[in-house]
This record gives sequence, C-alpha cells and structure tokens, in this order.
Amino acid sequence: MEEEECRESRDSTTPSLVILGGGQLARMLAMAAIPMGCRVSCVEREADCPAGWLAPVAVVPSWEDAGAVVRALEGCGSAVVTLENEFIPDGTLAALEERGWRVWPGSATMRQIRDKLLQKSVLAGAGLPVPAFAEVQAPEEIAGRAEAWGWPVVLKARCHGYDGKGNATVRGPGEVESAWRRLGGAEGRSLYLEAFCPFERELAVQVTRAADGRCVVYPVVETIQRDHICHEVLAPAELPVAVSQRAAELAQEAVRCVGGVGTFGVELFLGRGGQLWINELAPRVHNSGHYTIEACECSQFENHVRAVLGWPLGSTAMRVPAAVMVNLLGRRTGSGRVTGVEKALAIPGVHVHLYGKSRCAPGRKMGHVTALGPTVAEARARAVEAARCIEFGEMSEVI
Amino acid sequence: MEEEECRESRDSTTPSLVILGGGQLARMLAMAAIPMGCRVSCVEREADCPAGWLAPVAVVPSWEDAGAVVRALEGCGSAVVTLENEFIPDGTLAALEERGWRVWPGSATMRQIRDKLLQKSVLAGAGLPVPAFAEVQAPEEIAGRAEAWGWPVVLKARCHGYDGKGNATVRGPGEVESAWRRLGGAEGRSLYLEAFCPFERELAVQVTRAADGRCVVYPVVETIQRDHICHEVLAPAELPVAVSQRAAELAQEAVRCVGGVGTFGVELFLGRGGQLWINELAPRVHNSGHYTIEACECSQFENHVRAVLGWPLGSTAMRVPAAVMVNLLGRRTGSGRVTGVEKALAIPGVHVHLYGKSRCAPGRKMGHVTALGPTVAEARARAVEAARCIEFGEMSEVI
Repeated sequence: MEEEECRESRDSTTPSLVILGGGQLARMLAMAAIPMGCRVSCVEREADCPAGWLAPVAVVPSWEDAGAVVRALEGCGSAVVTLENEFIPDGTLAALEERGWRVWPGSATMRQIRDKLLQKSVLAGAGLPVPAFAEVQAPEEIAGRAEAWGWPVVLKARCHGYDGKGNATVRGPGEVESAWRRLGGAEGRSLYLEAFCPFERELAVQVTRAADGRCVVYPVVETIQRDHICHEVLAPAELPVAVSQRAAELAQEAVRCVGGVGTFGVELFLGRGGQLWINELAPRVHNSGHYTIEACECSQFENHVRAVLGWPLGSTAMRVPAAVMVNLLGRRTGSGRVTGVEKALAIPGVHVHLYGKSRCAPGRKMGHVTALGPTVAEARARAVEAARCIEFGEMSEVI
Repeated sequence: MEEEECRESRDSTTPSLVILGGGQLARMLAMAAIPMGCRVSCVEREADCPAGWLAPVAVVPSWEDAGAVVRALEGCGSAVVTLENEFIPDGTLAALEERGWRVWPGSATMRQIRDKLLQKSVLAGAGLPVPAFAEVQAPEEIAGRAEAWGWPVVLKARCHGYDGKGNATVRGPGEVESAWRRLGGAEGRSLYLEAFCPFERELAVQVTRAADGRCVVYPVVETIQRDHICHEVLAPAELPVAVSQRAAELAQEAVRCVGGVGTFGVELFLGRGGQLWINELAPRVHNSGHYTIEACECSQFENHVRAVLGWPLGSTAMRVPAAVMVNLLGRRTGSGRVTGVEKALAIPGVHVHLYGKSRCAPGRKMGHVTALGPTVAEARARAVEAARCIEFGEMSEVI
C-alpha cells in the first residue's frame, strides 16, 4: 500500500477501495472503479500480479496472516474492503471487521460460501434446488450414498476448489479409493459428496446486491465448460422465458440467503426437462460475467463497485443483441508473452482483454475475448476465431 | 519512469506506450491500452496528475527540456511514444525521433499544427475551407484586414491557446489595442487574425489514421460551447446526410494533409446554408470524442492506441441511437473533492468519469458524464441532470 495514496483518500474523502487479491478480477474491478473517481489498491502475495499494472499492491506473506493483512490496510482510513476470490480465511476477514473495516461481502457471508458443504446446506435450507449432497468422512461412506443416488457421484473438496481442481467424478466403487487419495482425503482434507446432476447445459447468472437488499440481475448466460474450466460464455442463453425467469429468481434468492453484498456469480445446471439446480455460488465478480463489460449498460465490475460503496446500482440490460466470451487459456508452461493480438483485433466486434500475467501455464486464464454480434451464433464465430489468433509464450517454447 | 516496468517491456516485447502528458486524456488512453495488454507510462511535470492514478509518471521540469524528456524515456527500449497535448515543443519531439523513438503523431505533423497560423496555411493549401486568416505583426495591421473581411475579427495566439485562452474577438477599431495587449502581442507573442465565421452551429469529428494511411472516422457530433469552452457534445449531430458526409470527408482530408497518425479531433463551423469551415485540428484524442467510450464500438482512445501501435483500427459505429456528453467544469478555486456522484449514478443511462484532479478551478475540466438514450433529446436531459448533481470542492468553499 502506498502511504501517499491512503493519505490522500483520508484527507479528501475520495472513495477508496482495497481489493484483497490482485488477479484479473481485481484488475477489471480497478478498471471500473478508477473512472468513477475511486482510488484502488490491492493486497496480494506478490507485487507482480495483473492488478499491479494499474494499482499499488501491498504484499502479504499469506492470507492466513491476518496481522499482515491488517497492517497492509493501516493508513487507508476510509477505504471499503472487497475481495476477488473466496480463498481468504474467515478469520482474516473477521479480524478486519473487528477493527472497524467495512468488508463486502462480509465474513458472515463468506463463511457460508467458502465451505462448499456449508454452502450447499444453506442453499438447501433456503428451499433452493441443489443436487443431493452429503458429508463424507471416510471413503467407506461413498458407495452407500452412490447406491442410493445412482452412480456416478462427484467427490469434492469442501474448500479451495476452482476450475475443477478439487473435484473428482467417481463412476463406480472401483474409483472410490483413487478419488479419495487424489483429493487429499487421506491427508485429512475435508471432502463431501454430491449426486451427479444429469444436466443438459450449464447456465450462469450474475447478481449484484446492495447492502440495503436491493438486487439487480444480469441476463442468464450459457457456459461451455471443458474439463471443469469455463471455455465460452454465450449471452444471452437461448432458453424458454419461464426457465430464464426461474434461473434469475433462483440466483437472486441464493445471494439473498447468504446476505451477499456486491456482485455474485451463480452457476446452475439445466436438466433436460427444464429443471434447474444451483451448482455453485461465487461470492465475487465471475468469469461468466466478463461479457458485461461491453455488452451491458453497466458491467458486473462497475455494479460491484457501486454496491460496496453504497452507490445506486446500474442497469444490467444488454446494449447489443448478443455477446460471446471465450477464455484465453494457457497451453504451455513458460513466459506470458503474447502474440497475435493484432490479428484478433482485425475481426469486427472483437474486444481483447489480456491479464498481463508474466507466466503462462496449461489451463491458466491469460485473458479473454468478447465478441458482440447480431446473433449468438455470429458473435460466437467471431470470438472463437479471435481466440485462435492469440498465443502465449516464446516461439522457442512452441510444442 | 519505473525502471522495472521498462525492463519488463523490453524483455518480453510486451507492447509499451509512453504518453507525453498525464492529464485526463492520458488517463483515458491508459484505460484503453491496459486491457489490451499494453504497458503504459507517462511523462509529466508533476507526479500528482490524472494518469498517475493508474500509470507510473516520470517527472520532467519542463517540456522545453528535451534532455530531461530523453532521459525519462531511457530504458523503455521498445516503447511507442505518443502525446495528449499540443504544447510539447517540436524540438523535444524531434530529439526523441533523432534517438530512434517512434513518436506518433510525429514532429513533422505537430509542427504543422502547434502554430495555428501554419495550421491554417496548410489546411488552406490543401484546398480545405477555413475562415479567412492573416499573419499580423503589429496592431495597426488589424483594422485594414477587418475592413476587408468585415467586423468582428478574431485575434488569436499562434501557439499555446486552448479553451478560449489565447483568443479575443475584436468588434471594432476601439477594441484592437486592448485585445493586442491582453493576448501578449505587446510582449512579442506571435498573433494572427481570423475573419469571424458566421456559424450557426459547431461540429466536431474524430478521425483515427494509421501509419499506412488507412483512416476511420467517427460520427459527426455537435458541440455546445460557452465562453470558448466545450460544455456539451451531442452525438450524432442532427444534420442533412450530405452535410455530415462532407464534414467527415473534410476531417479525414485535414488529418491526411498533415500526415497525422493516431486519433485527431477536427472542429468545424457550420454556416446557415450548410457551408462548412474547419476551425481547428487537434493532434490528439479530443474532448468532443469522450462519448465514444460508451457509445461506439471502439472508442477514440482504443483506436488511438491501435493506430500508434500499428494494430488494425476498430469500428467507429455507434452502438446506441444517441449519446450526450456534458463536461464537469470547476466552478470555484479549491480542493477537487467531489460530491453527488451517487445522485448522478441513479439516473438511467449515465456514466460518470472523474479525472482525479486534486485541485479545482473555475472552468477547469474535472470530469464528464455521458448519458446514452433512445434520442439525443432524452440523452441530453439525462446528462444535464447528472452533471448538475456533481460538485467539486469542500462544503466550506461553497460560494
């Protein structure tokens, strides 16, 4: 944290936002906050991070070190604290709140979301549809549940999973032991079990909720996942009106039932008969909402900033008929050097977002492209073509 | 300049942009460049400047000190240099070019624009319509010209004028001496004279031109000026198609005839009978094009970055039927503290841009609002209402 930044904020009551985390979500939050006159700084475990391109970064050794996080924030008197990932321990957030910081979403919300088993319980308790789930403390408990629900089942880590890390589909009794070991159950990592949801498509909805309970909801989008990683987002999802209304209602209710403040991403499964289940609630701006930067009147990032600062929320309406986002995922390990941007920019309606990561790794989110168009099909063709143009890594690293 | 930033750019060939100037135009250029993966740094005479919120600033004592500017750029091996104002001496730009920097727009272009008398000569020489103009070296020469052209006439400084500073309307022989003195003619400042153009409305057009000569042109807008300061921009201008086509052609030809590369703002006068005169050519992104951030497929800022980096230009088409921008001008001298943003954001279709200036002064551009809408009239009502909500300065400073 640059002392100078903080002093200025306190003196002039310039609104000031501290983001816990400095990844691409923090970078895009900063891009939305700065034009509205909001000073932004980040806390991260290293200075070389995507948000570090445009905001000062206070480096802390770990998120578990609540004292270090508190010290990083000292001097930023009037700042509002927010976060861009769900990996910050409740204890660290609670320590900030105890010292009088406004933290959105707050530790009470985060506690109900970080532990995915607790999250499922809270959602189910609020009457929301979720796949069948159960705590499992030993691999022996799995087969019994699976016989009742039907194979396959999904074994999941209660905390710290993302992009499929921490998930294992178990197709039969023979796969139980290896899944249990792979997810760290043998080392005492807390796991839980879910019924495999017979979904036909995956949907997502962004919801922004203000501290006074007012909510806005973005269009329902379809997400195309491969290996549990989001590859594409199609906006809007082509759905019967009743289904999309129901998805929007479920998403808002999910955010409400955890007392969420800010923008949340809600992932849903859509069954063959139009049934909906909530898959997961992300307490932050979400990859499935990046298309809102160009496609909606007010992006998920701007609305998050508005919500946590106590400002009125903006319209979530789409300004264009269709938008498709394609993630730029790393394909190799090495430098984050990018090539082909100029080829992507030559395609009409394409917007390129690079996250400025200095290192690339297979599956790592290095950037995304959003293409606008008159139809989802046309926007998708443009976005896919643009994404194909862009490569990360040195030429010598090409495999 | 942070040595670290520059080193990284050189190593990884991350595109890198150095902006000479750190005001709001540099701030908005940086906002457009960073998402495309471009490192941005600025050179300015003080670190506390609008672009300093999101980019490192190298401080130089003055623009005349070419050596200091060269030193500020050392270490940024592969950067492209651009600028956000026309006050940087040709000598400084030429010094950079001589040392191998790519500077866009280049010193040859800037030389033809900085001196407004030379600018008028170049435009007239290219056959473009401009008001009658003449060099004047003594106040005694003015009355003769004015008798030939008709009173009033406009006395103008050849260099360093902006927002009406450096202009004086001379209504008759009795006002010659005072205008001459006020503009510094008595101290040897170079002045020139223009016929007063009997315009009905003022128009503006942004043009982005690539180094290979390819051009894109934005919609023609109407600018509402008071006291020579732009107050509002209405997009698109309501004009007969033939007039707006002609304005777009003149604007492109004006940029072409000075060999411009990057985004240029072209101000035009519209006469009662549909005649057009070029009033002024600004060799940079322009206040009259701020509306393009939300209203066009690719903003004037993004297209400037694309042009100077040698990337393909984006579409200038409007994505909405109408947009109106209203400048947020300072009304008093004092702190730049802002109030009322939350009221402005409650108005549908409104986007608030604050420039983060720590000090306010009467007429100083502190920010702008852009409102989108189904018609210019509706967008204008929203933008005007939003601008009224926002105040700069401490409560104790209210007059």
